[in-house]
Amino acid sequence: MHKRDAARAFAAAAFMLLAPAALAQQTTLAPRDVPAKTIPVPGDVSPQLQAVIAHPLRSGWNTPPTTPQGWQQMANSEAEAAVAVVEPMAKRLHVKITQGTIDGVHVYRVTPETIPARDAKRLLIHVHGGCYVLNPGEAALPEAVLMAGFSHIPVISVDYRMPPTAYFPAALDDAMTVYKAALKMEKPQDIGVFGGSAGGALTLEMMLRAKQEHLPMPGAIDVNTPMADAVDWGDSSRTNALVDNVLVSPSGFCESAALFYAHGHDMADPMISPLNGDFHGFPPTILLTGTRDLLLSNTVRTEQKLLQSGVPANLLVFEGMSHFQFTINDQIPEDRQAFTELAAFLNRHLGH
Amino acid sequence: MHKRDAARAFAAAAFMLLAPAALAQQTTLAPRDVPAKTIPVPGDVSPQLQAVIAHPLRSGWNTPPTTPQGWQQMANSEAEAAVAVVEPMAKRLHVKITQGTIDGVHVYRVTPETIPARDAKRLLIHVHGGCYVLNPGEAALPEAVLMAGFSHIPVISVDYRMPPTAYFPAALDDAMTVYKAALKMEKPQDIGVFGGSAGGALTLEMMLRAKQEHLPMPGAIDVNTPMADAVDWGDSSRTNALVDNVLVSPSGFCESAALFYAHGHDMADPMISPLNGDFHGFPPTILLTGTRDLLLSNTVRTEQKLLQSGVPANLLVFEGMSHFQFTINDQIPEDRQAFTELAAFLNRHLGH
Repeated sequence: MHKRDAARAFAAAAFMLLAPAALAQQTTLAPRDVPAKTIPVPGDVSPQLQAVIAHPLRSGWNTPPTTPQGWQQMANSEAEAAVAVVEPMAKRLHVKITQGTIDGVHVYRVTPETIPARDAKRLLIHVHGGCYVLNPGEAALPEAVLMAGFSHIPVISVDYRMPPTAYFPAALDDAMTVYKAALKMEKPQDIGVFGGSAGGALTLEMMLRAKQEHLPMPGAIDVNTPMADAVDWGDSSRTNALVDNVLVSPSGFCESAALFYAHGHDMADPMISPLNGDFHGFPPTILLTGTRDLLLSNTVRTEQKLLQSGVPANLLVFEGMSHFQFTINDQIPEDRQAFTELAAFLNRHLGH
Repeated sequence: MHKRDAARAFAAAAFMLLAPAALAQQTTLAPRDVPAKTIPVPGDVSPQLQAVIAHPLRSGWNTPPTTPQGWQQMANSEAEAAVAVVEPMAKRLHVKITQGTIDGVHVYRVTPETIPARDAKRLLIHVHGGCYVLNPGEAALPEAVLMAGFSHIPVISVDYRMPPTAYFPAALDDAMTVYKAALKMEKPQDIGVFGGSAGGALTLEMMLRAKQEHLPMPGAIDVNTPMADAVDWGDSSRTNALVDNVLVSPSGFCESAALFYAHGHDMADPMISPLNGDFHGFPPTILLTGTRDLLLSNTVRTEQKLLQSGVPANLLVFEGMSHFQFTINDQIPEDRQAFTELAAFLNRHLGH
């Protein structure tokens, strides 16, 4: 190449000012080979979040249980471990936790000690995460406690049935039972629904199911790092593989767990992969993820689909966070900030 | 460990339910060692965007020019190469490009052929990107053409002076000259300011400077993948290093270019690193980035700082996109979608 041609070629590649003809000429889609690298803990987050980011990859991420008993033991152990985190946090955030049932579904009520007049007629329904298999009992509650504490709105957290007790669509059925009961307690526009990971997917699935059943939409929803496409977790599940220290890999324990819940059902069904559903008519939605999150792509694809469906959607992305790391506890400044912003969105959109 | 203890330890690590005590015990912040990997082109974007993602890393990313003449030659070559993209796109989007000067600053006027009555009194100021050194002349215009085409609002694109002709703060000075002139043409609430990369940083710097000079804020701004912290590009500049095929590395040509512009000035100055400035009082802001963008972190940190400063902020993140890849041309569905959403935000917030 002449020097001038080389400069032009460089320039054309520079800011990717590719002519459509040039794009069409590419016949194979070459993957990107990325060399090994060592990524330091970022300096632009709080020391508390730095400690979370520095934590090694989740142990056992690639050796999930292989028996129903194995999954149940893992879930139960988590529930035991969670008590030590949930109860002190509830105390610090001045919320009370009680158990009960609503139309046969086990729930936790997470109730602020002081409820402003504005929030007295409001109600939030929480649908927990855990790949549809994990986080039974109190293990589900950090997200609910943080939300009740920061929004000052009463929360009902659905302790839905999980494998090996019950499979797809038991989790969704139980969440819908509680939603229908809530519709008898408060006006739809005063109700919010929220959850993260599988709970984010379930929140979206609830909206699809509510449309099918001609139920009114709630006033707003909060969908945190949703497993919105259970078949393809998207590009970030590969770019952030072995960077995210919670989910670690798209072929890890969480995929196994979701398959265990599906129990042979088609994973592309919108009731497991809600990104395949129709979002028209959904209520205003806030979404949250982190830059290291394996489900960053699923979250941003969900936002785009909401916007394309005419739904007002706001996206929050937290620096350096892996999957679901915004709910560790209220002593991490970024977690406080996350729930301050999520609560502000719900308070802005719910009726009063 | 007993079996039960092991299960509990596993569970505690599982969803990162780390007690604060455990966090405090970590004395060193271990980096993450990530093995080499091969990342396929994602299947969940358009074929047109797939071709963009499959493009190899920008050639010469780690061998930037070392002389003023070298930089100027590179910039000029880009400008030549850009003409072939800009003019057909302007035709397709029915916008007219003319040149002129405003109070001595060279500008392009990018004017929709048809302007709805609502937009007749509105005006957008475009501040282009290119690491403060690249994209002179028409090379600056894809973003301006797309915005004019999708918003139907007239755009003035500032062809600010760049090194080696003029150094910091010449770019900002020229942008402010045009902003002050615009304030004499239209009401502040009818004016929007937008730009990407260094242009996103310049947009934020303009707001800081406007506050210093007691000028009114515009009605809304659009800040795309801003180089908001020129000292630390954040965690994504390392997690996405050698994944982003535009910027490629935080120690590449763009850092060299920004240092060339700064000309010895402190890179932490809010007028080069606006993330170090005070965002209170900024107008409603929309931000855009991509999951593979080296400046994903800078963008999300900017959104968080805006929200913490009481500024309404909306964030768009596009699946699989590297830095600034939303402005390639209007024949890529995701680029059309991006500008549909950016234009909708500006149209919602500008006065009329």
